[in-house]
Amino acid sequence: MAIGRESVEKLLKFKSTKWKTSITRIESNKISTRGYPLEDLIGTLSFPEMIYLLIIGNLPSKKEAMMLEAILVSFSDHGVTPPSTQVARLMASTGSPLNNCVSGGILSFGKHHAGALENCMKLLQEGVKDYTGSIDSPKDIKKIAEVEIEKFIQNNRKIPGFGHRYHDMDPRAPKLIEVAQKYGFCGIHTQLALAIQEIISEIKGIKMNVDGANAGILSDMAFDWQVGSGIFMIGRLPGLISHIYEEKTREPPFRKFFGVDEIYYNGVEERILSNGLQHPKTDTNYND
Amino acid sequence: MAIGRESVEKLLKFKSTKWKTSITRIESNKISTRGYPLEDLIGTLSFPEMIYLLIIGNLPSKKEAMMLEAILVSFSDHGVTPPSTQVARLMASTGSPLNNCVSGGILSFGKHHAGALENCMKLLQEGVKDYTGSIDSPKDIKKIAEVEIEKFIQNNRKIPGFGHRYHDMDPRAPKLIEVAQKYGFCGIHTQLALAIQEIISEIKGIKMNVDGANAGILSDMAFDWQVGSGIFMIGRLPGLISHIYEEKTREPPFRKFFGVDEIYYNGVEERILSNGLQHPKTDTNYND
Amino acid sequence: MAIGRESVEKLLKFKSTKWKTSITRIESNKISTRGYPLEDLIGTLSFPEMIYLLIIGNLPSKKEAMMLEAILVSFSDHGVTPPSTQVARLMASTGSPLNNCVSGGILSFGKHHAGALENCMKLLQEGVKDYTGSIDSPKDIKKIAEVEIEKFIQNNRKIPGFGHRYHDMDPRAPKLIEVAQKYGFCGIHTQLALAIQEIISEIKGIKMNVDGANAGILSDMAFDWQVGSGIFMIGRLPGLISHIYEEKTREPPFRKFFGVDEIYYNGVEERILSNGLQHPKTDTNYND
Amino acid sequence: MAIGRESVEKLLKFKSTKWKTSITRIESNKISTRGYPLEDLIGTLSFPEMIYLLIIGNLPSKKEAMMLEAILVSFSDHGVTPPSTQVARLMASTGSPLNNCVSGGILSFGKHHAGALENCMKLLQEGVKDYTGSIDSPKDIKKIAEVEIEKFIQNNRKIPGFGHRYHDMDPRAPKLIEVAQKYGFCGIHTQLALAIQEIISEIKGIKMNVDGANAGILSDMAFDWQVGSGIFMIGRLPGLISHIYEEKTREPPFRKFFGVDEIYYNGVEERILSNGLQHPKTDTNYND
Repeated sequence: MAIGRESVEKLLKFKSTKWKTSITRIESNKISTRGYPLEDLIGTLSFPEMIYLLIIGNLPSKKEAMMLEAILVSFSDHGVTPPSTQVARLMASTGSPLNNCVSGGILSFGKHHAGALENCMKLLQEGVKDYTGSIDSPKDIKKIAEVEIEKFIQNNRKIPGFGHRYHDMDPRAPKLIEVAQKYGFCGIHTQLALAIQEIISEIKGIKMNVDGANAGILSDMAFDWQVGSGIFMIGRLPGLISHIYEEKTREPPFRKFFGVDEIYYNGVEERILSNGLQHPKTDTNYND
Repeated sequence: MAIGRESVEKLLKFKSTKWKTSITRIESNKISTRGYPLEDLIGTLSFPEMIYLLIIGNLPSKKEAMMLEAILVSFSDHGVTPPSTQVARLMASTGSPLNNCVSGGILSFGKHHAGALENCMKLLQEGVKDYTGSIDSPKDIKKIAEVEIEKFIQNNRKIPGFGHRYHDMDPRAPKLIEVAQKYGFCGIHTQLALAIQEIISEIKGIKMNVDGANAGILSDMAFDWQVGSGIFMIGRLPGLISHIYEEKTREPPFRKFFGVDEIYYNGVEERILSNGLQHPKTDTNYND
Repeated sequence: MAIGRESVEKLLKFKSTKWKTSITRIESNKISTRGYPLEDLIGTLSFPEMIYLLIIGNLPSKKEAMMLEAILVSFSDHGVTPPSTQVARLMASTGSPLNNCVSGGILSFGKHHAGALENCMKLLQEGVKDYTGSIDSPKDIKKIAEVEIEKFIQNNRKIPGFGHRYHDMDPRAPKLIEVAQKYGFCGIHTQLALAIQEIISEIKGIKMNVDGANAGILSDMAFDWQVGSGIFMIGRLPGLISHIYEEKTREPPFRKFFGVDEIYYNGVEERILSNGLQHPKTDTNYND
Repeated sequence: MAIGRESVEKLLKFKSTKWKTSITRIESNKISTRGYPLEDLIGTLSFPEMIYLLIIGNLPSKKEAMMLEAILVSFSDHGVTPPSTQVARLMASTGSPLNNCVSGGILSFGKHHAGALENCMKLLQEGVKDYTGSIDSPKDIKKIAEVEIEKFIQNNRKIPGFGHRYHDMDPRAPKLIEVAQKYGFCGIHTQLALAIQEIISEIKGIKMNVDGANAGILSDMAFDWQVGSGIFMIGRLPGLISHIYEEKTREPPFRKFFGVDEIYYNGVEERILSNGLQHPKTDTNYND
């Protein structure tokens, strides 16, 4: 059988097209993101507007852009207390390149660190979604809050987005709520977060932290919880970079973060290798 | 000998202070970055202003902030052509968490990929610094350009910041220069980048790319070349995240990016293990 | 109050001892691991014996050492089909350093890739532990197998350690079982894995893979499932390194893994930026 | 034009074959590494023999295998003193998955940490290669040593593979030399390393460390210096994993490695945000 070369190529290309994207189209001398020529966006969009366009697919309103600015600023740094920042600086001290140190920091966002935003967004979004009745009044929201808190208490888990190991009262949270009120993002999810705060601050004296506030606001801006950690990373990256740069330029290279005398060995005491006992001669030679 | 407990504590604490920072001070319920209470910055600063404050240590002028917006937007995405984006998506397809995929992308910025900004900043900053005469006219700048180009030609190396594997004419570069002219950042380094372009575009038809343009502008904004890759990473992170999110939500998990029949094995043909030859029995038993 | 300096130092040191370890004690000119002077182990222990000593805390028997050799060899490479290897090679092509490429590979072990060993170990260990009766005969083991299979079927999940995207019959699995029989590690967990295979191979024609076999054997060697992925990583690392080295030495740097014409853009078509609509002039200036 | 479908497919496939490898061939139900069916290697080869086969391409002699065992054992752990181990444990404390913690450790091998093996191998291999005369006697080797030392002294750089921050006399080095003598790997490169030691131990009292000894031996075993860091990583990985496992199972999660009072802020004192000064109202609105 013989067929036109062009048809065959088309056929085969279609089959082998492993790379599809709806984000940016690249042609020779042309780059367009979400349909807009990139050169039209440079010098026109703010960086958070570009972030919104990339992740959501459309341009934000001015208010959404302003809100996103505030959220990203609120995440940007927390000194050297976060383990991620310590990791990044430790790595910087070994002379590792900037991208390694940044990755070290980002990879340190584990179960107990920096996952609160995403987990709190999930809690709020699912709490609202799973509620069977219509949500018409603060009473309804309070009911959802009680249901969600109950789930965590029953599983003996901490509620993500509330409490902080260095602050009784995280100064970022009330400011974010204030900004959200100004721009109109204190919707149902933020109100749910506030309702949770009301209950657990009464019982346990625990207040909302930066993640709890942003979880509510981002949910009201329609961000999927699955991309929550991404927003946190974008916000925190400049902080990580400034710490790595500070370590590289202001501290001695390969400094010891602690002395050998600060290490406590609590393993078994001296042992002597006894081949006779460990490896009986009657054993099979491993290459037979 | 006996001494006051307080003095001893002070003494020992001073000695063991391994963590010093000038970026953010953390106290209970207080966070201040570069001297400003963080809650004053939330809702007030734009995100690029915060980035500038963290890295440089002072607030930018409005024009510096606008310029930085444009630079970050220009870096934000280049579709699926960069290996870093391919790595991030491949990793996303295996079900790796978002921070792993992001790190994979960031760790892919190797010698041949994404180092151009930093290397071009270094070239421009050192070119200007090493020039012995005073730089008063375009003629002086052209002289530096010639010296720098010569160095690369002699070492048979490509000049970083010029040429692009997908574009003869990177559409981002002229737009960035235009924005830089508007805000007053076409200083000596950007002029040097333009002078280099003039020479090599005549000889080889190669034009400035996004890194070349931004290298000049960032240098004229007084950014240290050592932090150059950091600016690129901040700009590109949202693009990486949007690709990872697209892969996770729009493609089947663990898809095969190519079939086994697309792999070509070009190693040695079938061999048979011959213990007799490989491991002579006369050899010592490794545990004796 | 005044107290002895020595007592104070002891007091403060104890409080601040953040680094405790039972693995290796470092003193000036002395290194001992799990109690053995390291120089006594060099040239005496095989590498897998050292691995066992580090992770388990005691020296293995000769048979345990031989079994671990076989397990590590079985994991060592699977060509370029695993996404982790593709990631490592893609990164190598960008000129990234060896440790970055290795990390890229290791970070690609996601939910759908390379977690099977650990998950299968967990399944087998919990299956045995949760069984209330005494396990005396193959019948009891078959009962556990049925219970465990049922759990996965009810949750509509694939059973980890069974089936392979490239092999109907993974050639590594039966060989590993054979070696385990030789050295006496076909205990209760391996028998459980074989019982699961019997059932699902009848229903679905799916056979045990390398992870399923090793999950049983490692469990019978008393390895905690939480360290399972570690064993896989140790086994696979040499394969990753040989691929990175091959890419760096036998392929052109920064090669294109596919052309721009193999990318399919399926996003929104051309859009024009309309400031008027996007950013109404009546909106608040964000810096006021 | 019309052509046979098969020819076209062949043509296009050849063109698009981006994945070539000489390491492992994968076919359905068949895996062969360097030509050997993998099931023949499982239970037959020792793990270091497999490592050698993967990286070098051929099976080692028994003596090469024994030597490689000793080298890998010598690298396996150094307690919590290396920054890479500290990074891995810090990350483990945040609840990060095992592969993240391992990558953090591996990414910490920077300019000042863990590069010594590779750099020393390079020094030795290039020293031997660049020597113009024939190397017939210890005198010739001493000459090369003098030339190489001179280069480092002139560049004011430390010679890699010599000296250790915790040991005057690294106990691993002499033991490795002893093993190398037993197996016949004290060739020209190891002798060069010993000659360097002789000179600088006289001048500065600095002795060879584990990297210096292994650099000589690995070079005499014909390992390319470009793969040197890979050998170190394979050796160290089990140590990293045992530390991560210890942190995860024996320490409280998310523990504070130091208190807030151990951090010293040395940045600018309190500042007040003054919008009027920072952002003159006459400036252009960035969205116009």
